[in-house]
This record gives sequence, C-alpha cells and structure tokens, in this order.
Amino acid sequence: MANTIAPQLSPLTTTDQNLYEQVADRIQALIREGTLAPGDRLPSVRKLKQQLSVSMSTVLEAYRLLEDRGFIVARPQSGYYVKTTTLPDEPSQSAPPAQVRPVDISLMLRLLRMGLAPGMIHLGAAVPGMENFPLNTLNRLMGQVMRADPLAVHAYRTVPGCEPLRREVAKRMLNAGCSISPDQIVATAGATEAYYLALRTVTQPGDTVVIESPAYYAILEAMNSLGLNALELPTHPQDGISLSAFQSALENQSVAACILVSNFSNPLGSCMGDRKKKALVELLNQYDIPLIEDDVYGELSFDGSRPKAIKAFDTEGRVIYCSSVSKTLSPGLRVGWCIPGRYQQQVEHLKVVVSHMTATAPQLAVAAFFANGGYDRHLRTLRHAYQQQMNRMHQAILDYFPPETRVTRPRGGHVLWVEITGEFDALELFEEAIHHSISIAPGPMFSASHGYQNCFRLNTGLPWSDKIEQAMKTIGYLAKKQLARKMLAS
Amino acid sequence: MANTIAPQLSPLTTTDQNLYEQVADRIQALIREGTLAPGDRLPSVRKLKQQLSVSMSTVLEAYRLLEDRGFIVARPQSGYYVKTTTLPDEPSQSAPPAQVRPVDISLMLRLLRMGLAPGMIHLGAAVPGMENFPLNTLNRLMGQVMRADPLAVHAYRTVPGCEPLRREVAKRMLNAGCSISPDQIVATAGATEAYYLALRTVTQPGDTVVIESPAYYAILEAMNSLGLNALELPTHPQDGISLSAFQSALENQSVAACILVSNFSNPLGSCMGDRKKKALVELLNQYDIPLIEDDVYGELSFDGSRPKAIKAFDTEGRVIYCSSVSKTLSPGLRVGWCIPGRYQQQVEHLKVVVSHMTATAPQLAVAAFFANGGYDRHLRTLRHAYQQQMNRMHQAILDYFPPETRVTRPRGGHVLWVEITGEFDALELFEEAIHHSISIAPGPMFSASHGYQNCFRLNTGLPWSDKIEQAMKTIGYLAKKQLARKMLAS
Repeated sequence: MANTIAPQLSPLTTTDQNLYEQVADRIQALIREGTLAPGDRLPSVRKLKQQLSVSMSTVLEAYRLLEDRGFIVARPQSGYYVKTTTLPDEPSQSAPPAQVRPVDISLMLRLLRMGLAPGMIHLGAAVPGMENFPLNTLNRLMGQVMRADPLAVHAYRTVPGCEPLRREVAKRMLNAGCSISPDQIVATAGATEAYYLALRTVTQPGDTVVIESPAYYAILEAMNSLGLNALELPTHPQDGISLSAFQSALENQSVAACILVSNFSNPLGSCMGDRKKKALVELLNQYDIPLIEDDVYGELSFDGSRPKAIKAFDTEGRVIYCSSVSKTLSPGLRVGWCIPGRYQQQVEHLKVVVSHMTATAPQLAVAAFFANGGYDRHLRTLRHAYQQQMNRMHQAILDYFPPETRVTRPRGGHVLWVEITGEFDALELFEEAIHHSISIAPGPMFSASHGYQNCFRLNTGLPWSDKIEQAMKTIGYLAKKQLARKMLAS
Repeated sequence: MANTIAPQLSPLTTTDQNLYEQVADRIQALIREGTLAPGDRLPSVRKLKQQLSVSMSTVLEAYRLLEDRGFIVARPQSGYYVKTTTLPDEPSQSAPPAQVRPVDISLMLRLLRMGLAPGMIHLGAAVPGMENFPLNTLNRLMGQVMRADPLAVHAYRTVPGCEPLRREVAKRMLNAGCSISPDQIVATAGATEAYYLALRTVTQPGDTVVIESPAYYAILEAMNSLGLNALELPTHPQDGISLSAFQSALENQSVAACILVSNFSNPLGSCMGDRKKKALVELLNQYDIPLIEDDVYGELSFDGSRPKAIKAFDTEGRVIYCSSVSKTLSPGLRVGWCIPGRYQQQVEHLKVVVSHMTATAPQLAVAAFFANGGYDRHLRTLRHAYQQQMNRMHQAILDYFPPETRVTRPRGGHVLWVEITGEFDALELFEEAIHHSISIAPGPMFSASHGYQNCFRLNTGLPWSDKIEQAMKTIGYLAKKQLARKMLAS
C-alpha cells in the first residue's frame, strides 16, 4: 500500500518549518492515524521524491528524522518500514481509596533527599534537558531589556507584574482557547508560587481538596504544608480524573477545591478532551467549587495541536489558571503566571505578602522571547525532541523491562508512568537503583496515602544517550531480579 | 576655637575615598561629637589648607560637601559656620495598648491603593532613589554570569540558593558580628519572602506575635494573612522595644515569636545598642522564643559603622535573620536571604513549597557585585546621600512644619517618623496631600490597632529636589491649616 500514500499527504506549504520536517510530519500523521500500519513498507525514496516533487535529500532527511523519532526503521537492502513495536498495555484507571486523609510527605522528603546525591542519572525528577534550548538568545534579550531601562528593571514595581509579559501571556492564552486581558494576569515565581497562592487563597487548614491520583508530588507537599486533607480521585491515564467520582465526592462531603495538571499531566500524562473539560467546569459551577489548573505542559503536545485549558470553559471565574516557562524555556528564571478569575484581588494581595513582587528582568526577558525570540519555533523543536525521547524510552522499556510492565502513552509532556503488575516494590527498586547512581521517582511519592507501591515515574525530558540507555537497562534488570526473587520467596 | 581643629583631625590616610571626603568626614565627626558646636566658625579655607597640607580646592570641596550634607552653612563675606538648626524634639517612647489583638489591615490596603495613583511624589513608600545606583555595573555582571554558564543559570537548582551568593553573604555577615557558614544561608525573593517563611515556620494561626510599635506595615500584612495576633510593645525611637515590657508579656501570656527590624528600624529609625541586643537574646533563651530579625537597613548607618545584628548574640539558634539588597542595590532583582538557625530545615522545606527556588541569575549577579562590583564604595556614597537627604528633610520640617511637630533622628536608614502633638489627624492630611499628588504614610498603617492617628512616615530615600522641597512645604501648609481649623472648631 505504501506506494500510494502521496495523495493522502496534505499539500506542503511554505512555512518557516523545513520542507523535510513537513514531509516527516505528514507521514507521521499517517502512522498515528493507522493509514500506515506497523510493518508497512514506506515508499522508496525515489518514488516519494517524484510524488511530492521534492529533492532526494529532502526525503532522505525526512526518513532519517522519522527514524530518530522512533516511528520507522531502515532494513538494509530493503527500505524503510513502520516500526512494529507493540507497546505494553497502559495502566488502567487508578482506584485510590475513596477516603479523605491528611497528606503524609515524610517518605517523599526522604526519597527526594536521597535522589539529590551528586553524580546521579536523573530519571526521577521531571526536568527538561536544556542542552539545545535557545539560552544564548534568551540571555541576549535579558541583556537588552536590562540596558533599555535600568531604573525600571531594578526599582520596586506593583505586584501584578510587568505589562509586556502579561500582554504576551494573554496572546498565547488565545491558543489555549482563553480570551484573557493582560490585567487579569499576575506574574509569579514559576507555577509553584502560582498554585501555592491559589491554594492558600481558596482553602483553610483542615479543608479537603480533591486531587488526581497519582498526583504531582509538589502539589502534595504544598497541601501538607497548608494543613489540607486530600481526597484522591480515580484517574485514567488517557483523560484524567473520573467526573462521576468527582460528582459523588461533591455530593457526599464538603470539598474546598480541586487541583490538577490539566494537559499531559504529571505523572500520568493524561489530557482531558474538550467535552470533559466543559463538563468539569459545569460541575464546578453547580457545586460552587474553585479549581486550580496547572498547565505547565500544555504547549508540549507531540502533534503540535495545543489542547485547550480548562480555563477556556470557565464561565464564572472559578478556575485559577497557573503556568510557567519552567518546562519549555528556563526553570532558573522563575517566571510563571496566575490567572485567578474571581479570586484575583486575594491572589494579588497574597503575592505581596509572600514575596512582594516577581523579579522584573526575568519577566521582561521572557516577554521579549515570546515576542521576538522564536518561541514557537523552539516549541516545535522541543515537541519533536520530547516525542523522540519518549519513543526511545518506550523502546527501552520494551527491550529491557519485565513482561509484567505497563506504561502510559502520553500525547505530550515528558514523563512516563510505569506499573509493574504483581508483587513488586518500587521503593526497593529505587534504593537499588540509587546504588547504581540512577534515580527514579517511586509511586508512593505521588499519593497522599503512599499508594502505587508497584509504580514509578520516569522523566523523558533528557536527550537520549548511551548513559540513559544503560540506565534503563539497569532498571529493567533490577526489576526483573526483584520479580524473580519475590517469585522464589513466595 | 575653630582655628585649632587641625590637631584633632585624625591623619588623612591613603584609601580609595577621595581626599576631600576624608576631610569632610573628619570635620563632620567633630561636629557630631560636639567639639565643633552649633554656631562655631570653621577655620578659613586658607588656614585648613595649611594645617592639613592639602590643596585649596580640596578644602573647598570638603566644605561644599558638608554644606550639602546639611552640617555647615556659608555666610557671605564671613566664612563657614556649624549649622544652628535645632531639630524638633523626638517623639517619646510609644505606649500602645498592652493587649493582644488581631491585625486589621483594611485601612492599610485602602491607603496603599490610593497612594498608587500615577504621578505621585512618593514620600510615603520606603523606596530608594536609584538614579545614582551602579546599575550599569550590576547589569554588566548579570550578563557575565549568564554567559559564563547558561545551562547552570537556567536549570533547576536545589533550594538553599547559589553557593557564590551564600559565600559572599557569609563574608558580609562578619561585619554584622556574625560568624555564619555559607550553608546556613537560604536565598529568598527579598527579605519579604524570608520573613514570610520565618513567620510561617514558627507560628500557627491564632498565635500571638510580639512586634514593635509602630511596626513596618508589610509585617502587619504578613501577620494578618497568617491569622496571627499582635502584641505591640512600647518602642523608643532611639533604641527600640522596651525589654521590660517584652519580659512582662512573656511572663503573662503565651507568645509564639517576636519580629522586628533591628537596625535603623522602619518606621522609627531605632537601633538597639549591643548590650540591649544581648539582653534581648537572653530573654529569648530564657523563655524559649524565636525572634525574626529584619536587617535590611543594617548597612546604612550614617557614620559608616555597621551595627551588629541581633543574630550576632544568638547562642542557641533562635534568631531567624532576614535581609536583602532591596534598600541598597536593587529591589527589582528580588535577592534576599534568610539565616534560620535551628529552623533551617523547616525554612528550606517551606521555600520549596512556596516558590521552589529563587531565580539564579539575579543571585549570581548580586554575588558578583558583592565580590567585585564595588559594593562597599557604593554603600559609602549611599550612606552619605541618605544622610544628606535626611538632613534636608529635617531642615524642611523645621522650615515648613507647625511648631507642634516632633520628628525622629535616626542614625541610619532612610525613613523619618513625624508626630504632630495635639489634635491632629494624619489620615486627613493623607487625603488632602493626595489631592496635591503627594503621598505620605499615615501612622495608623503601622499599628495593628490603628493607633498613631497623629503620626506619619516620610521617605528620605529620594535625592533632594525642588519638587520634594515644594512637597514638604505643601505638607507643612496642610498640617498647619488642619491644626488651625481644629483649633477654631473646638
């Protein structure tokens, strides 16, 4: 069939994207749709060159890119084929205890401390590998904004943040389906400060907050610090929390707020569809509940389509939207923002109390990068890189992990959630991996009740390397060994 | 007598300070000590030139500097004289109600919002006038540290902050009498975040915290936000809180912590002597109470001698020291630090929760400025400027304010506390001044109980100008008019 794909390829257009990337993207889309199935042979280079009226080298580069991204393989003397990797199953929807409980973070703190030892290969922390980030451009823009008006950069400013940043964020929010004016935006020190302010604004110590399960552990830390109780909802790796479980929670108990990572969530990688997002907001309205939306991964969908924010469906100002550039440009600058809706005045006041204001120069540098630094071009590169790295990680899991492995298949972001079915202890794996200078993030860190003993999170944010390949091999080996040991003991 | 001052002048030495500044400093010291009394004639320029073996222009420049600083006046055809200004009395020790109460900040918020109107002459906010700050050097250093290691600057870092900053802060703490190692220091977003973290660490909602009275209003905001009650202590404009009142409070009720601005406090300008600082720490030890020390003005003593921190006398790690560069170099960079003593682990954890980490580039730029930017030279200039500006402000108060005025005489920092005795309402003055586009900070902002109705704070951080002179004239006029109106009405 592969000889006839050209008519199905949408026409190539003149964009700032390279021609070969366009060719690769179109073929990739056909693979994802299933038009090109695993095992299918791709058209020969010569044929595709003719069909698309592009040069031989363009086709070759496109195929090489698809190989890098893990979608196709070259077989010597035979041509290119769609990869036949059959990924392990995904974990099923989680089933946390339907019980309000305080958030215990003692284990998390111990694990985080252990993971900080020097010389580690960090497959635990969700950090971007920044080797190919346009940091020189960013630094140059920072220099420019500082020289342009030194007094303005170094003086006290009022709290909502710098106008240029808020304007650029407002523009970008259009892609997330949100029509927001700059003065509805508050600059913060990363999304961390944004959701901390949001949580403090809408809760009192002792309140119950509804969360995903598994949930991002830093959110659990914030809840513990604020004396909040957690109600963990069943959550599906594809489309997030169960709305029926949420509704029944709202019917049966007093809930102060809900907090979740909306797009390509951490750690499950889930992303609710628009209809579900809309239904979620309707629930919020019905029960008069605020929602704190952490959308730091929203720009990182592999297919380039930016999912809408839950905020896009917010008709009554109940969604407190939080995001930052920490996953896409620079964690070190600490630039984030909060769109607090009806809670704006309280969030702004709390921001003054907590840190007076966000540093000016980093805000202006990020604003300049959004405006003129090629942020969209950078995001495109980044999405491809993250996708490729995730494919590599999937492949390594296939190659090295025990057959009892399940793994998520996120359509964006840079974390994977691994479950080893049967009797398996991720904390044991963690401690053994630490001895091999590899850190992973064990499942119990992601739960108020230390669930997910047989799960762990892997970071796919780092560029693939032999070191990572080797680390994955080691993790797989340790996991298999543990399973064998437990089998013998039982 | 003035003809014989040369022998009393300590010898001029070779430093990086200009010769004329050395001459001026020596004469100024004689004035402060009283060796040269108000009204005394200074030696003629010719005579001092001979006595000190310096050039005529050096003496002239020294005299001009002393004139600028407000210590001497030139009388045509006659020479230079020590100024005879007799400053108004200082306010006496405050006498707040000895009563624990919640912190009401509604008035403060209203006043702060009104003071934000555009085009204001800001005599209310304690902001430095930064026109002569070495911002270009600071920007250059920022560029250098960012280019030196872009990956390190933009990546996630662990929370205590950057090693170079903590090392430089540790060095500077020696001047404050503190021998602190870099790893006892936590970088924060200004002193604001430092004392917020400190307050949250050592208190629970509903706790009572002992404060100065009047107290810095942003501390009152933080206490309100954390649900804390305030116990205001009698405070003297010269040496701060009454220790006997503190002791009796500790004897009679449950106190969770004490928080104060230790050196050249805001708003009173008070600065405890070493003996009192030591006695205060002994009280803390005796009653097992933590103290949060805000020392942002510590480097700004007019005579150049850096007062010790209370932390210098802390034998049991009970003092949580907070400071920043916001009053001396750049508020906009948001670089501060906390030395939490025995609370270090909790403060570090809370820092992770609240904002994950402090932005890296600003920390490294400040560290580089401390190390190589000429920070001490800058501080010297700044201290002189602040002293001169305060003298000008004192003079304007003498010239324009009603005779019922009392005013503080701080030996450092850049705020003045003004009291108008008798029936006077600073809120009325505030509202009238706003109509003249002048903002002041009325007394009730500085009290949990809205006391100090007849007081207000003036910022002396801005370089003197005709506009400020005119604003002071207007404030004085409005104050006199109010007093007259009230007199007639009564």
